[in-house]
Amino acid sequence: MIGTLQIDVSKQGLHDITAEVTGWIGKMNAEEGLCTLFIQHTSASLLVQENYDPSAKRDLESWLNRLVPEDDSLYTHTLEGPDDMPAHIKSALTATSLSIPVIKGRLALGVWQGIFLWEHRHSVTRRKILLHFS
Amino acid sequence: MIGTLQIDVSKQGLHDITAEVTGWIGKMNAEEGLCTLFIQHTSASLLVQENYDPSAKRDLESWLNRLVPEDDSLYTHTLEGPDDMPAHIKSALTATSLSIPVIKGRLALGVWQGIFLWEHRHSVTRRKILLHFS
Amino acid sequence: MIGTLQIDVSKQGLHDITAEVTGWIGKMNAEEGLCTLFIQHTSASLLVQENYDPSAKRDLESWLNRLVPEDDSLYTHTLEGPDDMPAHIKSALTATSLSIPVIKGRLALGVWQGIFLWEHRHSVTRRKILLHFS
Repeated sequence: MIGTLQIDVSKQGLHDITAEVTGWIGKMNAEEGLCTLFIQHTSASLLVQENYDPSAKRDLESWLNRLVPEDDSLYTHTLEGPDDMPAHIKSALTATSLSIPVIKGRLALGVWQGIFLWEHRHSVTRRKILLHFS
Repeated sequence: MIGTLQIDVSKQGLHDITAEVTGWIGKMNAEEGLCTLFIQHTSASLLVQENYDPSAKRDLESWLNRLVPEDDSLYTHTLEGPDDMPAHIKSALTATSLSIPVIKGRLALGVWQGIFLWEHRHSVTRRKILLHFS
Repeated sequence: MIGTLQIDVSKQGLHDITAEVTGWIGKMNAEEGLCTLFIQHTSASLLVQENYDPSAKRDLESWLNRLVPEDDSLYTHTLEGPDDMPAHIKSALTATSLSIPVIKGRLALGVWQGIFLWEHRHSVTRRKILLHFS
């Protein structure tokens, strides 16, 4: 079974999509299986991370922004804006696809784990994530 | 089929779990398929890497420790100890899930490849990895 | 169904393998499913990235070469050449496996997405990628 999540993002950073994914899995009415997420973009990515303390999320964003700054004389790919090339690099360093087991009809995430769409650009846009369950 | 590996770790670094995963796959008695690993933590991760020369493993650990040091004034998430925020960052830069084909009943790893649990904290703890085979 | 791609690489950098993967999927004659790629090496990796503007590809390569230089006194694993340890680190930071949904018989890549083998060594060699479809 394949579905699509359309996520409207309004700013750079981590967007919690755990509820959207667990909601979709709930509709499968399946006992056991594997849920795979695939993001159809190269300037946004996927992450499983702590969803409890907002400071962890914030530090993660700040750290990656410092590692991959917008203002870098190395970039030659600058036509699409100063946040485009850093966005491609950040995507390359994180995940485009993720697979999570489903047990007793539920995503088998750890106690503190959430699923995030990591938007690496500043623009207001709609991102598409494909969901596969088998 | 879904199983669980419980791995006791006593220190930070790469722990070879190849034998545990191949052992579980052996019990499947299946000719062909796909084995997916998912780690239920956000301060430890998964890695496929060279399992031959210990110096490669050591350099990998040192390099990531230098890239993501414990002593960094950027961190505001410090309540859980100086190794917690670096652990989340290191997890984000490596893998939470991994999928490896099974051929003729065996994990189709390359000649030099091993599977590792990468513990990013210093604590003595038990980590849970889910295994899915289909 | 499992297949093997053998890719001859002649230099370091991103090699577009989208045509090879879509060709293999085409032969499946399947409506819907999941395609998983697994690279059997620890000094080359997989990446989904923009395949439109060559400058994005070039900047990505330059950026990672700067983050993980060959000349670094941290390395003790140097017997296999100055490009070997950086190659292991670069592989650890990118993907060893990737899963992409198949819809209406085709890989469901985003408009600008291509699949790349990222060769991290300088040598002329043949790399093996396993393809799994279910």
